[in-house]
Amino acid sequence: MSDAPRKTIAVLGSTGSIGRQTLEVAAAFPDRFRVAALAAGSAVDRLEAQALQFQPACVALADERAAAELGRRLSGRDTRVLGGDAGVAAVAALDGVDVVVGAMVGMAGLAAVLAALEAGHDVALANKETLVAAGAVVTAAARRRGARLVPVDSEHSAIHQCLAGQCRPALRRIWLTASGGPFRTWPAGRIARATPADALRHPRWSMGPKVTVDSATLMNKGLEVIEAHWLFGASWDEVRVVVHPESIVHSLVEFRDGSFLAQLGAPDMRLPILYALSGPERPPVCWPTLDFSACRALTFEAVDGERFPCLGLAVEAGRRGGTAPAVVNAANEVAVAAFLAEEVPFAAIPVIISAVLEEHKLLGAPELAQILEADAWAREAARRGIGAGGGRGERPRPLQ
Amino acid sequence: MSDAPRKTIAVLGSTGSIGRQTLEVAAAFPDRFRVAALAAGSAVDRLEAQALQFQPACVALADERAAAELGRRLSGRDTRVLGGDAGVAAVAALDGVDVVVGAMVGMAGLAAVLAALEAGHDVALANKETLVAAGAVVTAAARRRGARLVPVDSEHSAIHQCLAGQCRPALRRIWLTASGGPFRTWPAGRIARATPADALRHPRWSMGPKVTVDSATLMNKGLEVIEAHWLFGASWDEVRVVVHPESIVHSLVEFRDGSFLAQLGAPDMRLPILYALSGPERPPVCWPTLDFSACRALTFEAVDGERFPCLGLAVEAGRRGGTAPAVVNAANEVAVAAFLAEEVPFAAIPVIISAVLEEHKLLGAPELAQILEADAWAREAARRGIGAGGGRGERPRPLQ
Repeated sequence: MSDAPRKTIAVLGSTGSIGRQTLEVAAAFPDRFRVAALAAGSAVDRLEAQALQFQPACVALADERAAAELGRRLSGRDTRVLGGDAGVAAVAALDGVDVVVGAMVGMAGLAAVLAALEAGHDVALANKETLVAAGAVVTAAARRRGARLVPVDSEHSAIHQCLAGQCRPALRRIWLTASGGPFRTWPAGRIARATPADALRHPRWSMGPKVTVDSATLMNKGLEVIEAHWLFGASWDEVRVVVHPESIVHSLVEFRDGSFLAQLGAPDMRLPILYALSGPERPPVCWPTLDFSACRALTFEAVDGERFPCLGLAVEAGRRGGTAPAVVNAANEVAVAAFLAEEVPFAAIPVIISAVLEEHKLLGAPELAQILEADAWAREAARRGIGAGGGRGERPRPLQ
Repeated sequence: MSDAPRKTIAVLGSTGSIGRQTLEVAAAFPDRFRVAALAAGSAVDRLEAQALQFQPACVALADERAAAELGRRLSGRDTRVLGGDAGVAAVAALDGVDVVVGAMVGMAGLAAVLAALEAGHDVALANKETLVAAGAVVTAAARRRGARLVPVDSEHSAIHQCLAGQCRPALRRIWLTASGGPFRTWPAGRIARATPADALRHPRWSMGPKVTVDSATLMNKGLEVIEAHWLFGASWDEVRVVVHPESIVHSLVEFRDGSFLAQLGAPDMRLPILYALSGPERPPVCWPTLDFSACRALTFEAVDGERFPCLGLAVEAGRRGGTAPAVVNAANEVAVAAFLAEEVPFAAIPVIISAVLEEHKLLGAPELAQILEADAWAREAARRGIGAGGGRGERPRPLQ
């Protein structure tokens, strides 16, 4: 039993990988967490099962027809069913919620996270697009409403844990660790011809297909650099990436006095999810954790920017600022989808993104609507690029 | 320049290895630290030079004749010179001091640290004997006077840094790292015949000869387990030791939720000294620090209790409690001195300690005087053991 008051949580994207693991965590600590609301895209069966298990006050599906079907299935129960983006936003802004878990995938998550922050709710953030595309807008909303943005990503959770109790001015650098993905040891020529099946064979983490491909290109790490910039107020020079194949050290913080703090643990998302919901308290868990006595070697190596150009593309977009990160993120989503559909080779992914970024007319301090416009433009531009044969996978031009 | 108010420090044991590095740190941050008082044993020349450099209000030498000589040399200056144990205690209790660095070697440090705590001063503690021999007495004095005990040892500083900002009940285990010493890879037979020159060849740290031999036997790590018990209120089962030859990870903390925090850094005592004096602030340092991009592998292995029985002896004394740790510590000092004087082989060290511990009539909750008595008895018993040929280096009897 915990002495802490029970926290009321809403989960956006409850049927996805992070959403389901969040509900596992909630189910493991019924005395700590009450699930008040759930939202998802269109997965009627899964959301129905979750609603029956957790009996939330409110659920929403972004897809209106799916919502209508869910409403029929749950009629006569104490759970209100909402539909459409407005329904999802209503779940995000629900009264009486302590923490909203933002675990939707893609740009749809951005509006919902903003709705949660505008309602003054703390947000445990797993939705990458939120900070990548709209870091300035989102962090400003959190500041304005006094809401906390707590990371759920294992890397950012690691940094968050390392910075607890430390003086912010003491920070010198953030070292994000990257597993290196399935192609870490592959030569460039073999990477260029990698198939979707190759890319989906991640050595350490079990994740959704889009994130898994992003781990193979290291785009995922590039997006995480941008997230770290916004979450921890780190400059671009203050964030480094280091390859750590064992995925035990989830990231490190380097301080001005030469001291480093690192967070370690089994590669299990339930740990950062639990810390996001209950930190700085750390309740004892019932699942297997890292057995450090079995830990023999933790290895580290430099990132090869030649074989993995996506990391540099993302960081370059971060440095350019404004709408550039939203554009890279959108172009990447389209390129990854085309790769998974076997329309373009693996090597085309950075080529497509690079071309779109170069073509983009940057807006310096965009509002949300302008970010969404840039996102839509970049998707269109990427599709055009693929159609025009830009997806042949030649080497991307170097960026200035 | 720092915004923090300047801290006034007194250094006990200023002419030893930790004392000199403390003064290096103080000299590197003249806007942060003012050295108000220095104390040492008998090193007149060194203390004179330090007094001229830092112009403290007060210095003391435990050796009365050395103090008289120092008094002559410093006559006409603004530095008061005191002598004897009372003089050292007066330095420890000096008015207006913010932090006393306890860096004396041996039991002499214990009384001085107690004097500092009784005066209500925070103590940055490098003197092992203080907590090993008199952990209950010392921590009670700190509690009674509301003084803080801050570790200077790199391992305990690491744990202290990892626990900042964390909930104490969340702690599951402390993992102390050990370099393994110069005999880590030696077979038992070769260790038994190791010479003082072999033992003094420490692979990572540059320290005084006694501590270096303690690192070779792993007694040092055993004493650190006892220190961790007192500093962090950890039970004996909550402290583990793991060998980490690179000496980059200075220790780890494992939490109940399966998360670990580790502190890393170059093997340089100035880092933990600075943190002890200025933490949680971390001023930027001017000396070289760990280049993490050059870090390729951090390796870990289990301790071999068969080849290194001293670790187990110390922990067993800790578990027995009362006067047992003081007795093991005292017997170890005598045995190490005899080894360095080539009176006994390396393998005799645990044999001597084990025999003294078995012979000892344990006192459960000793006062300071009884601890000092047990210490004196153990030294005498160890010398008797060596004289009677108990130092032949046979295998110690297993402890119950």
